[in-house]
Amino acid sequence: MSSSFIQASIITIGDELLIGQVVDTNSAWMAQALNKAGIAVKRRVAVGDVWEEIWKVLDQETAVADIVLITGGLGPTADDITKPLLCEYFGGKLVRDEGATQNVINIFTRLKRPMIERNLKQGEVPDVCTVIPNRRGTAPGMWFEQADTIFVSMPGVPHEMKGMMETDVIPRLSSRFALPHIVHRTLLTVGVGESFLAEMIQDFETALPPAIKLAYLPNYGMVRLRLSATGFDEQALTQEIDGQFAALQTLVKDYMVTNRDEPIEQVVANLLKARGQTMATAESCTGGYMAHLITAMPGSSAFYTGSVVAYANAVKMNLLQVGENTLASDGAVSEATVRQMATGALAALGTDYAVAVSGIMGPDGGSAEKPVGLVWIAAASRSATVVQQMHFRFDRQRNIQLTAAAAFNLLRQLIIGG
Amino acid sequence: MSSSFIQASIITIGDELLIGQVVDTNSAWMAQALNKAGIAVKRRVAVGDVWEEIWKVLDQETAVADIVLITGGLGPTADDITKPLLCEYFGGKLVRDEGATQNVINIFTRLKRPMIERNLKQGEVPDVCTVIPNRRGTAPGMWFEQADTIFVSMPGVPHEMKGMMETDVIPRLSSRFALPHIVHRTLLTVGVGESFLAEMIQDFETALPPAIKLAYLPNYGMVRLRLSATGFDEQALTQEIDGQFAALQTLVKDYMVTNRDEPIEQVVANLLKARGQTMATAESCTGGYMAHLITAMPGSSAFYTGSVVAYANAVKMNLLQVGENTLASDGAVSEATVRQMATGALAALGTDYAVAVSGIMGPDGGSAEKPVGLVWIAAASRSATVVQQMHFRFDRQRNIQLTAAAAFNLLRQLIIGG
Repeated sequence: MSSSFIQASIITIGDELLIGQVVDTNSAWMAQALNKAGIAVKRRVAVGDVWEEIWKVLDQETAVADIVLITGGLGPTADDITKPLLCEYFGGKLVRDEGATQNVINIFTRLKRPMIERNLKQGEVPDVCTVIPNRRGTAPGMWFEQADTIFVSMPGVPHEMKGMMETDVIPRLSSRFALPHIVHRTLLTVGVGESFLAEMIQDFETALPPAIKLAYLPNYGMVRLRLSATGFDEQALTQEIDGQFAALQTLVKDYMVTNRDEPIEQVVANLLKARGQTMATAESCTGGYMAHLITAMPGSSAFYTGSVVAYANAVKMNLLQVGENTLASDGAVSEATVRQMATGALAALGTDYAVAVSGIMGPDGGSAEKPVGLVWIAAASRSATVVQQMHFRFDRQRNIQLTAAAAFNLLRQLIIGG
Repeated sequence: MSSSFIQASIITIGDELLIGQVVDTNSAWMAQALNKAGIAVKRRVAVGDVWEEIWKVLDQETAVADIVLITGGLGPTADDITKPLLCEYFGGKLVRDEGATQNVINIFTRLKRPMIERNLKQGEVPDVCTVIPNRRGTAPGMWFEQADTIFVSMPGVPHEMKGMMETDVIPRLSSRFALPHIVHRTLLTVGVGESFLAEMIQDFETALPPAIKLAYLPNYGMVRLRLSATGFDEQALTQEIDGQFAALQTLVKDYMVTNRDEPIEQVVANLLKARGQTMATAESCTGGYMAHLITAMPGSSAFYTGSVVAYANAVKMNLLQVGENTLASDGAVSEATVRQMATGALAALGTDYAVAVSGIMGPDGGSAEKPVGLVWIAAASRSATVVQQMHFRFDRQRNIQLTAAAAFNLLRQLIIGG
C-alpha cells in the first residue's frame, strides 16, 4: 500500500491485555471500520497501564501514523491513568466539561443509581482536546491534534467505543482527509488445502497487477481467498478488482461455497431464506454452539425453529426419539444414533431440514474404538438423510468449531443437491 | 514491574489482523502462558505482511525485550514472507532440515493427501536457527538468538502455536532464565458498579504495598478484582498476596460470587458438582449460547443434560409444554412464558434445576410495549421458581452475553438459597 495513503495506528491500553486475561476484540473491529472508510491500519500495539510505556508508544506511533486511535484506561478507578497522561502529553490541564458532566449525571439519574465524586470526575477532560460525546457510557472520548497527527482516545468498553467510532470519529476523519477507496473481495472454499489452492491459482497470482493483493485465510478446515485493492478512482478500482475476482472464481469454482465474506452458517441461512424453507439442529457434542452461530445472525427466526441440545442419552431418547436399543448396541457416537437424531429433530422441531451431530470432543471420553475427535454428522430432509464421519485431532474448543462448520457444509450440500 | 525481570514482546504478523478480518486470540493465550511462567509481557504488536514493517518492528522490539515471540506468516503460499525475512534478518540461508521435512511427509502420508514441492519447502529453515518441532502441522518453529535477545517464530494457526509453546518454547525459556513468580488472585463481584467498588476499597488500595497491584476488570455487568504480585521468593510472595486477598474478600463479601478467576457458569457448575445435582436450560433469545458456555467446559455431562433452544413458539409448546393460551395472552417474552419454559425444561430434561430465558435481543423485534433489550429470566427447582426482568441496551451480541450471565447468576442464587 503506497505511503501516500492515510495511515492509522491502534493503541490498546490495559494490563489485562498483557497477562492475557481478555482477548482484544476492539482492535479487529476498529481496523475493519477504518479500512471500510479508506484508512489503512499500519500497526496495532497493546501496552500495559504503565505511564512510561504508554508515553513511549505514543512517541513511536506519532512518528509513523497520521491517525492514532487509543482505547482503554478511561474508567473511574485508580488503575486508569490514560486521561492524566494524555493531559500531560499534550500539555493541557484537566477542566470540567459541561456536556460530559451532564452526560454522567443523566446516566446515573436514568439508572436510578447514587452518584459519587469519582463518577463526576469522568466529566473532566484536558483543556487541549475536543470532546467526543459518549452516548452509551460515562467516559467521554477525546480528540487531540499535534503537528500532523490526530489522536483519539476512547473507552475500552467495546459497545461505547463502537458508538463513538460510528457516530463521530469515522465521520470526522472522513471529512478531514481525502480518503481512498479500499475494496475487498472474498470467497470461501471447502474441501481443498491451502497449498493446492496456491498451485491451482499460481499463474493468476503471478499475473495480478501490483495494486491488487491476494491473501489466503485458512480457518475451520476451509480456506478463504481475499483480493484487496486500494485507489482513488472508485469506478476503475471496482472494475479491475471485479474482473480479477471473476477470473479467480472460475479457477476455484469446484471448491467455492460463496463469493461473499460470510461464514458457512450464513451461506446455509441465505439458501433457506431464498427457498422459504426451515431448519433445526440436534446437538450432542457441539452442545448448542451450532444453535448459537445461527441465532447470532439477526432475523434467524425466519428459517430456524430451534435445537435440542441432547447432551444426556435420556434427552436423545425423550425429545428426539432415538431408540434405546440403538444407543445400547451402537452407542451415542454412531451413524445409527446421529441418523435418528436428525430425523427425530425434523419431527420434534417441525422443519424442512435438520442437522445432527454426535462425537467425542475431548479431552476425556475417548476409547481405543472411539477416540477423541471422532464425530458423526447427519443432515436430513423429509425425503433423504446423508451422513458423514469425521476425525478431528485438536483441542475441545476447536473440535467443536470444526464439527459445526462441517455439519453446516453437509446440510448445504443436501439443500443444493435436493 | 521492575525492569530486572525478563520481558517479552509478542509480534503477530498478517494483513488480516490489520483489516480486522480475524480477531487475534493468539496474543492473549501467549501472554497468559508467558505470565504463568514468570515472564512479563511488555508489549504486543500486530503488523501486516509487509517486509519493511516486519523488519522495523523486529528492530524496535529487540531494543526493549529479552524475548520476542512471533506468530504468523509461515504458510506455504506467496503472501507468507516471514521465513525468508527472518533468514535475511539473522544473516542465514535457507537449508533443508531433515526432521522438519520428514514431519511434512509424515503428515501428508497420514492424511493420504498428495504432496507438492510447495509443501516440501516447509521443511526448509534458515541455517542460523534451532528448529522447534511442530507436532500438529507442517510449518516448523524457529529459535534465533542475537546479542541478548531470543526470538521464536511460530505458525499463526492457534492449535499449532499452542503445541509448540507448551512442549518446547516455555520449557526452554524456563531453563534458560532465572524466572520470578508472577502470582494473581482474582475474585468476581455481581451487583455493584466499578465506582462503588473503588470507593468501598479505597483505603485498602492506598495501603497496598508497592509489589502488589490492583486491577478492576468490568465485564458482562460484573466486575472482577485482580491482585498481582511479582517476585523471586515464592513463599513470601504467596503469603503477602494471600493476606491482602483475604482482606479484600472481607471488604467486598456482600457482592463476591467466587474468589477464583472463573466465569459465572463455572461457579454454577462447581456448586452443582459439589451437591451431585443436575441442571438444564431452556433458551429462546440466547439461542443456545448458554448451552454452549456450559458444554465448552470439559466434564459438563456430569451435571448438565441438555437444552431446548425454543426459538419458535411451536417448539416452546411441543417440547416445553408452554401453554398456547399463555403465548396468546402474555406473549413469548413474558413472566408467564418463561416460568412455564423453566418448569417444562425440568420435566423434559429430567434435572434438579432448570433456567429459562426469553427476550428481545435486537436489532429488530421490539415494540413500544416490549422494547429491544427486554428479557425475562426464570430459574426453577422441583420446589420453587424465581423470575427476574432485565433491560439491556446494547447490541445483539452483548445482549445475548449479558442475558446468559444474568441467568446463570439467578440460578446460582436459587441453588445457594434452596
